[in-house]
Amino acid sequence: MRNYTTMAFLKKPFQGHLPLDKLKDLILVARGEENPDLTLHNVSLVNVLTREIEENQSVLIKHGQIAAVLDASSLASYPKATTHVDLNEAYLAPSFIDSHVHFESSMLTLTNFANAVLPHGTGLVVIDPHEITNVLGSEILRFLSKEIKQLPLDIYMEVPSCVPAAIGLETPANEVTSQTIANLFDDPEIDVQALAELMNYPGVLFGANEILQRILVTRSRGFIVEGHAPGLTRGDLNAYIAAGVISDHESVSPVEGLEKLRRGMTLQIRDGSVASDLKRLVTGLLEHKLNDWSKCVFASDDRHPDDLLNQGHIDHTITKAINLGLDPLLALQIATINAAKHLHLDHFLGSISPGKWANMVAFSKLETIKVTHVFYQGLQVVKNEKLIMQSQPLPFPKQYLNTVALPEYQKKDVILKFDSKSVQESSVKVKIIGAIEKSLLTTTILDNVQVDQNNVFIPDTSKDYLPILVVDRHHNVLRNGKGIVHGFGIKQGAIGSTIAHDTHNIVVTGSDYESIVTAINKLKEQKGGIVVTQHTRVLASLPLPFGGLLSTNPITETANLLSQVREATETIGCKFHNPEMTLAFMALPVIPELKITDKGIVDVNKFQLTSLTVSSG
Amino acid sequence: MRNYTTMAFLKKPFQGHLPLDKLKDLILVARGEENPDLTLHNVSLVNVLTREIEENQSVLIKHGQIAAVLDASSLASYPKATTHVDLNEAYLAPSFIDSHVHFESSMLTLTNFANAVLPHGTGLVVIDPHEITNVLGSEILRFLSKEIKQLPLDIYMEVPSCVPAAIGLETPANEVTSQTIANLFDDPEIDVQALAELMNYPGVLFGANEILQRILVTRSRGFIVEGHAPGLTRGDLNAYIAAGVISDHESVSPVEGLEKLRRGMTLQIRDGSVASDLKRLVTGLLEHKLNDWSKCVFASDDRHPDDLLNQGHIDHTITKAINLGLDPLLALQIATINAAKHLHLDHFLGSISPGKWANMVAFSKLETIKVTHVFYQGLQVVKNEKLIMQSQPLPFPKQYLNTVALPEYQKKDVILKFDSKSVQESSVKVKIIGAIEKSLLTTTILDNVQVDQNNVFIPDTSKDYLPILVVDRHHNVLRNGKGIVHGFGIKQGAIGSTIAHDTHNIVVTGSDYESIVTAINKLKEQKGGIVVTQHTRVLASLPLPFGGLLSTNPITETANLLSQVREATETIGCKFHNPEMTLAFMALPVIPELKITDKGIVDVNKFQLTSLTVSSG
Repeated sequence: MRNYTTMAFLKKPFQGHLPLDKLKDLILVARGEENPDLTLHNVSLVNVLTREIEENQSVLIKHGQIAAVLDASSLASYPKATTHVDLNEAYLAPSFIDSHVHFESSMLTLTNFANAVLPHGTGLVVIDPHEITNVLGSEILRFLSKEIKQLPLDIYMEVPSCVPAAIGLETPANEVTSQTIANLFDDPEIDVQALAELMNYPGVLFGANEILQRILVTRSRGFIVEGHAPGLTRGDLNAYIAAGVISDHESVSPVEGLEKLRRGMTLQIRDGSVASDLKRLVTGLLEHKLNDWSKCVFASDDRHPDDLLNQGHIDHTITKAINLGLDPLLALQIATINAAKHLHLDHFLGSISPGKWANMVAFSKLETIKVTHVFYQGLQVVKNEKLIMQSQPLPFPKQYLNTVALPEYQKKDVILKFDSKSVQESSVKVKIIGAIEKSLLTTTILDNVQVDQNNVFIPDTSKDYLPILVVDRHHNVLRNGKGIVHGFGIKQGAIGSTIAHDTHNIVVTGSDYESIVTAINKLKEQKGGIVVTQHTRVLASLPLPFGGLLSTNPITETANLLSQVREATETIGCKFHNPEMTLAFMALPVIPELKITDKGIVDVNKFQLTSLTVSSG
Repeated sequence: MRNYTTMAFLKKPFQGHLPLDKLKDLILVARGEENPDLTLHNVSLVNVLTREIEENQSVLIKHGQIAAVLDASSLASYPKATTHVDLNEAYLAPSFIDSHVHFESSMLTLTNFANAVLPHGTGLVVIDPHEITNVLGSEILRFLSKEIKQLPLDIYMEVPSCVPAAIGLETPANEVTSQTIANLFDDPEIDVQALAELMNYPGVLFGANEILQRILVTRSRGFIVEGHAPGLTRGDLNAYIAAGVISDHESVSPVEGLEKLRRGMTLQIRDGSVASDLKRLVTGLLEHKLNDWSKCVFASDDRHPDDLLNQGHIDHTITKAINLGLDPLLALQIATINAAKHLHLDHFLGSISPGKWANMVAFSKLETIKVTHVFYQGLQVVKNEKLIMQSQPLPFPKQYLNTVALPEYQKKDVILKFDSKSVQESSVKVKIIGAIEKSLLTTTILDNVQVDQNNVFIPDTSKDYLPILVVDRHHNVLRNGKGIVHGFGIKQGAIGSTIAHDTHNIVVTGSDYESIVTAINKLKEQKGGIVVTQHTRVLASLPLPFGGLLSTNPITETANLLSQVREATETIGCKFHNPEMTLAFMALPVIPELKITDKGIVDVNKFQLTSLTVSSG
């Protein structure tokens, strides 16, 4: 195991060209006049340029780049490489690309995320670090830029476009304005390449100056603007694309995906832990007999530590796509060259051809992608399925571990008490958030709930009407929004989390106020994470001290604690398989239809705060 | 007919985004809240993104860009456009792209070239102005940049990479070094986007610092390097690509083309007046069942005025490709989006989708592309096959018309006299240039020729061994190279031209020295062009005063005079159909195998000057 942090990597591979002397070496190696650093022999080359397999090829590498791809017969008089690897006819493909992911969903630091995805053959991830930016502000991108430089994985970092996700509906911890975005692009120490998913599509459609300025400061610098356009169609879709947005990862049906392709978008086929559209899209587009898949790419969007550990990453997505009937070579194009072309990085990566960075993966079967070897800039990172180049954490400021700032909570602070005017015969008509497992969407349930003699809402486990709170954890003030949720099915206890999209306050729900208070205070004490409580006891806990979002431990420990949390949620009667995930989206006021923030209940369709109670008549 | 020069066009469309207020209008138009400038109704949309036809579409245009593509049913409540065009179910495709052309081959100024290609649906031409740059130096790019701005045609101008084509083998008129190239890229008044075909591939393969520097100054600025790699294969091809060259238009066989595609090059399928590889490549790649044509584009390379007038441009190439069996939609992708992607311009043009410039062509049949309407940035340029927006010449400095500088020639200056040591029994063994019709290549013929009592070569019309001269016309000195050529078949007279690739000296051949002198002096007198002479008479003449390369007249006049020249060459017995074309390449010392410059005979394979005579033994 080598200590990776001691190695100097070439920077900014996306602008990558070798200096004159090294370029000359590359030419000499290609012509057989100098020895390569590395040669891979007996390669079944996955040629994603011509969509074919080329048997019996050798790949010659120098200074981290591919100097030549030649068949064995051309190599007779060539000098030997410093290092040889015989691939025994295994397939060699370009490393896989995740075209859009919030790495924070892995609950890992970027370094541990890299360690986790590298064995799966991921070579480039496009990250939108909007979770951590919401918590720590855009200066965190400076730290991430440093972290990126030490990793044997290409990270194409985009500037979060919508921090906070919604203006006015919640108390933001940080703001990223068009001026911030311009400054970030112009800062030589901040390695950002594009504007990340423009979630505020209503802002675009209404022509909001500040939102359009974010597009313009990006495009005027030659960078691309990535999109987020759930359900947009016809005039609205055209308007959003005309504004300069080039991609979308929110298509849930083939009809929606096809319309976006036809109008010029890159269709980011999402296969994540929270949402997977892969099956519907691939099946539907195959049925439609789509002629040209070149603008389809894969995106995980969100991928949780247990899924990364147990299923994998883009390798898993490719395999699923192939099992759905997609031609393996087409699936491999989607995972490599298509994404490189989308990002206009195809001159540097995305294919195994001369002059590209030698970022490549080997595997032995085309039907089920099981990566055995991984190379990054010509260095072997994974050998026989084992990560042999583990990246070590980069030291970071202590303040990143101190982001949970709120007063100690008491029961009186969390009880949901109604105004007496709303109460009729111990009953109040309210808008209840209808949570749906594995969905970011919620429904609005209008029903009567019972209150006690003090007009305090009585949690109703039989009807599954439970209190839910979003608690400010950024400003060290006692501020929270209260509501009622249906769906979690908790019978005795509470679950709370500092992962609460996108502002990442504390979100907590439970069957009783005592369990809720315990959860809030435990989260304060451990400086973030996920907890499951029962009255005054803590049943399970996953500490996520880095920004209240990330573990400082590697994936195995993190996934292990997460599974303990999930077992505990079963114990308290919760019906959802991954309740912390569904819980985290209760606070995201840009996905319909009823959500909750520290300011109260949000009617997302109207894009405004609304009262919890329904006025009679 | 509108005077086009009075119109202000949006500049630098390749970095094109609308300002905030206009972007807002685009959004409003797409959503039906503001009226478009132009709407095209009843469109059969050639969707080059999904490779399909979408029937019954409408295209809404505002501020020169496409705001929306919508079907009729979506438009019910939309406000009316300022201008309507009903296309009556005609096809509407993105304007066609010529990915590589030396516009000087048209013998027209750039403005007249634009007027000539616009009716054929060309919307973007990638020009390498290396002919005119050889004559007038790189400052001509400043004038061309101004000319480009006034044209209703996108011109992607590349910096000529090899001026002169060969160093040391001829006397250059101008030089473009790596430092010049850097300065050109950094000059805000010079609108250049890439490095044009790097013809000096031996320089790359030998790792010549100056040539590699030209690549590096280009790539370090984020620009692409286009290629020229005739016959390169295996190690040499890999080396050339590894050096950073991304395209090639010199493939003459499907095997060669396929190898270049596999190794990552864009295959520029050439269909020009001088050379057409279209039939061989398309037929061969269809037979091979090429899976992915996305890196194939069309290039004319050189297109003469008569061919432009009588056959067309990329429209003609598309039609031919379809007749060769290529799927029409695939051919249309090759002619549009593929080229846009190659240039990384696909966010701005190459498809009919929102946010792209409204550069579009209409035609009624898919099998034979006959363009009826052309739109550029939303303005109609061609209507019912007629150019309705004729661009007027831009005033230019008089010096551009005074580039032929040489002393008056006399017969003694042109006779080919051998050293007595070479002569044996009135005979000399020499290297004769074997000219081949419509080919840039020549052969080497070793044979004995007869000399008179003064050791002067006697032209031999029976064996078709004729004198050929390259006469310096740049430095006002008496300097010329003399040789012997086979193939033209002239019986009585001479043909001379100031088009002589790439330095563009005077090249002349004929059956007698008197006709040759007459041709040289006539070219001097008319300041360049092509002439056919017989003894002291001028039989025909095409004046090309602009740099000695271009007519200042429109295409019809130019093509008419050119056809007179060709008739005259028949009169003097010349066997070649387009002799001026073959003649022009006799002077290009980078295409094998025996060529002639003002310095003498060049052995191109050895890349050195060689003696005309063959030493006995």
